Amino acid sequence: MAGRLAIIGGDAAGMSAASQARRRDPDLDVVAFERGPYTSYSACGIPYFLGGHFEDSERLIVRSPEQHSERGIDVRVHQEVLAIDLAARELTVRDHQARTESTEPFDQLVVATGAVAVGPRVPGADHLEPARTVDAAERFDEQLDRGGEKAVVIGAGYIGIEMAEALKKRGFEVTMVDIADHVMGIAFDADMAKHVQDGAEEEGIDVRLNCAVEGIDLDDDGRPVAVRTAGGVLEADHVVLATGVKPATQIAQEAGLEVGEFGGLLTDDHQRCTGHDGVFAAGDCVESWHRLLERPVNVQLGTHANKQGRIAGINATGGDAAFPGVLGTAVSRICSREVARTGLTEDEVARFTDLDVIAVVQKSLTRAGYYPGAGPIWVKLVAERSTGRLLGGQIVGVEGAAKRVDVLATAIWAGMTVQELELLDLGYAPPVAPVYDPLLVAASAAVRELS
Amino acid sequence: MAGRLAIIGGDAAGMSAASQARRRDPDLDVVAFERGPYTSYSACGIPYFLGGHFEDSERLIVRSPEQHSERGIDVRVHQEVLAIDLAARELTVRDHQARTESTEPFDQLVVATGAVAVGPRVPGADHLEPARTVDAAERFDEQLDRGGEKAVVIGAGYIGIEMAEALKKRGFEVTMVDIADHVMGIAFDADMAKHVQDGAEEEGIDVRLNCAVEGIDLDDDGRPVAVRTAGGVLEADHVVLATGVKPATQIAQEAGLEVGEFGGLLTDDHQRCTGHDGVFAAGDCVESWHRLLERPVNVQLGTHANKQGRIAGINATGGDAAFPGVLGTAVSRICSREVARTGLTEDEVARFTDLDVIAVVQKSLTRAGYYPGAGPIWVKLVAERSTGRLLGGQIVGVEGAAKRVDVLATAIWAGMTVQELELLDLGYAPPVAPVYDPLLVAASAAVRELS
Repeated sequence: MAGRLAIIGGDAAGMSAASQARRRDPDLDVVAFERGPYTSYSACGIPYFLGGHFEDSERLIVRSPEQHSERGIDVRVHQEVLAIDLAARELTVRDHQARTESTEPFDQLVVATGAVAVGPRVPGADHLEPARTVDAAERFDEQLDRGGEKAVVIGAGYIGIEMAEALKKRGFEVTMVDIADHVMGIAFDADMAKHVQDGAEEEGIDVRLNCAVEGIDLDDDGRPVAVRTAGGVLEADHVVLATGVKPATQIAQEAGLEVGEFGGLLTDDHQRCTGHDGVFAAGDCVESWHRLLERPVNVQLGTHANKQGRIAGINATGGDAAFPGVLGTAVSRICSREVARTGLTEDEVARFTDLDVIAVVQKSLTRAGYYPGAGPIWVKLVAERSTGRLLGGQIVGVEGAAKRVDVLATAIWAGMTVQELELLDLGYAPPVAPVYDPLLVAASAAVRELS
Repeated sequence: MAGRLAIIGGDAAGMSAASQARRRDPDLDVVAFERGPYTSYSACGIPYFLGGHFEDSERLIVRSPEQHSERGIDVRVHQEVLAIDLAARELTVRDHQARTESTEPFDQLVVATGAVAVGPRVPGADHLEPARTVDAAERFDEQLDRGGEKAVVIGAGYIGIEMAEALKKRGFEVTMVDIADHVMGIAFDADMAKHVQDGAEEEGIDVRLNCAVEGIDLDDDGRPVAVRTAGGVLEADHVVLATGVKPATQIAQEAGLEVGEFGGLLTDDHQRCTGHDGVFAAGDCVESWHRLLERPVNVQLGTHANKQGRIAGINATGGDAAFPGVLGTAVSRICSREVARTGLTEDEVARFTDLDVIAVVQKSLTRAGYYPGAGPIWVKLVAERSTGRLLGGQIVGVEGAAKRVDVLATAIWAGMTVQELELLDLGYAPPVAPVYDPLLVAASAAVRELS
């Protein structure tokens, strides 16, 4: 198929779409516009770069613009799409280096504009740049190199804790504040979030909850000096904003593309924007079907972005691929703990469903008790009371939480019950699990709770 | 229910049955006969004890005879059941300490006699004691302490490699010989077994395959001096026999209980011995239903023994619990590799089924490439050609194989296809997985292979 496929956004979703389309249709003109200098980078790796796990920020880049060009994708970095004209099939593009604007035609379009940070709406916050891209991370890294003693992280979700740990590892005194009554936001119930918080506090991070930020004081050069909170003033040589992100949909909405309740672009399961032929969207800027809630939600994760981009690329080139939806699986390793969740928390069940559920929390060991390195792991399961159908899992442990949550995700995906889970043939060997895996221990407790 | 429940065998299956029965029926007389000195120990942990991962062999004991007694179970150690009279409901018991024999009545019986080693049938082998129990492991540990330089391990399956690694860790020069053309026996296909062998060789273990053992030379005190093989004589101060085990069913068979094709006692899914009311069997001595092969097989693993024992205990006390069968999941960490398998290997498919399958092997990384500690992991998937139904998985990697195989076990249990697996919502974070988890990479390859 001849023609031109334009892609807005050069990270995971956009470049997955570009690569897939390029591979499938050698005659297609594939052009990708990226407003920053980099393509296909791992934003999730930024806290580990800042924490000094590796030196070279370039390692975050999976594939550079040059590498994409070599594969026949026309990548335009430093070029920002300002407007989409769906009727005329044209983009208005600003070249930030040449300082010019041009009009670019397209036959088909993939919108992969990602997400933007939502800072706290307090004085001073607008002056701070969130370290969400590789170039922003490099700038923040230079700032950190200039010294100082104290850092304040605003927001105690995944990114907040990952950044707090990174700053602690860099030698700063770190305070993390959040307006909520527990860490990890809505991703974890309070009882499980407590184990994450314990991990952060064991690393020496000062965690302040129920604590509203009122403003950020800056010096004459615009550098942070202090964070004013409801609980007092915190001196701060560095401030990290980690209060969440929202889908970046402004130009898409101005062009008439529809957004859902969570602010993401609405697509069908082929990543086609509702009601617009040849227009696709993928990644952090879209809403994805939640298989348990049976409604679209906005989940920002590289894994979905990659898959959805790939699916958009397949469908834009005459293929037929469908994204089957998400379960809300998310994992991290923070502060000597692996933390993982999938499906619904008790809190989400209460907020978004009418389901009647039971929930259990069981503490176990990650390995046979006598095997060196065995440590605590907590597993929480949420199941439907009438049937035992598994609805959600949260795991926090010194190791082995992430891959164990994948077992739960697979079980939820397949519609399994806790009764089935209890007798699953899971692997056992002293270095990797006790004879009753923590998942089986939790499933047994859930079965008892149901009876 | 009054009456007497007798249990033959004081390890995982037997004592799980005893504990469950005790808890459920306070009036029942529960007596367990164990010919050795210990109860409820982790045989799987023996190689790690011998390798010096921990000093005290008592740590292998989950619950001692005294602890069981305190909970109201009449445990008789050093007492071996010599005969079962099912008609008279009596056991003939030999007390090895008092050197007496007695008759013990029972109303219900659980046979949990475990397995016995199958040594190579060569001169000298009968003089060597396999380190399969805690007391045998203690004796072998003392032997190792007496010194020597060279050790030979006969058999390159799980236990053989675990023991070879333990001996290497103790400072011996280790040679491992096996008559097969690859390590890990029938548990792994040759292409995957190669990665396990590479791990063993990297640790400095001399692996000799296609190598038949012809005899073991002993000195006048009955201690090993050398192992004679088809490929020459190997000097040996210590010799480990790890050529497999078989169900210990002699007294049960003499009593008229039926065994299956793999030599294990036949039971229904309630662990009831076929045709014998009130007689149960569980653990290494039984055959278990294989959910994919749809026939009984003999799998010797503590995890099944615990579950089956528990189920026997429930059903012996008027309950109703069923064992849903096995998939052949097995994992270990050996020689800096985690190795894991579930379902069917290509070889097993060919030997035991008429299925037409595809198989793929994909090499990936265990973490994001830039994250320290990332290392190689190989995933092999076997799927039905006509449907894509997942039938088996083998994983070898520097980490993360065991819990990843649990995902495959769950998917196989639920009857999922590789097409579904490819788009599963598995967790992603740089410290624990690449953005496309190795399982998803392998599933994608399988989907391509199918099309």
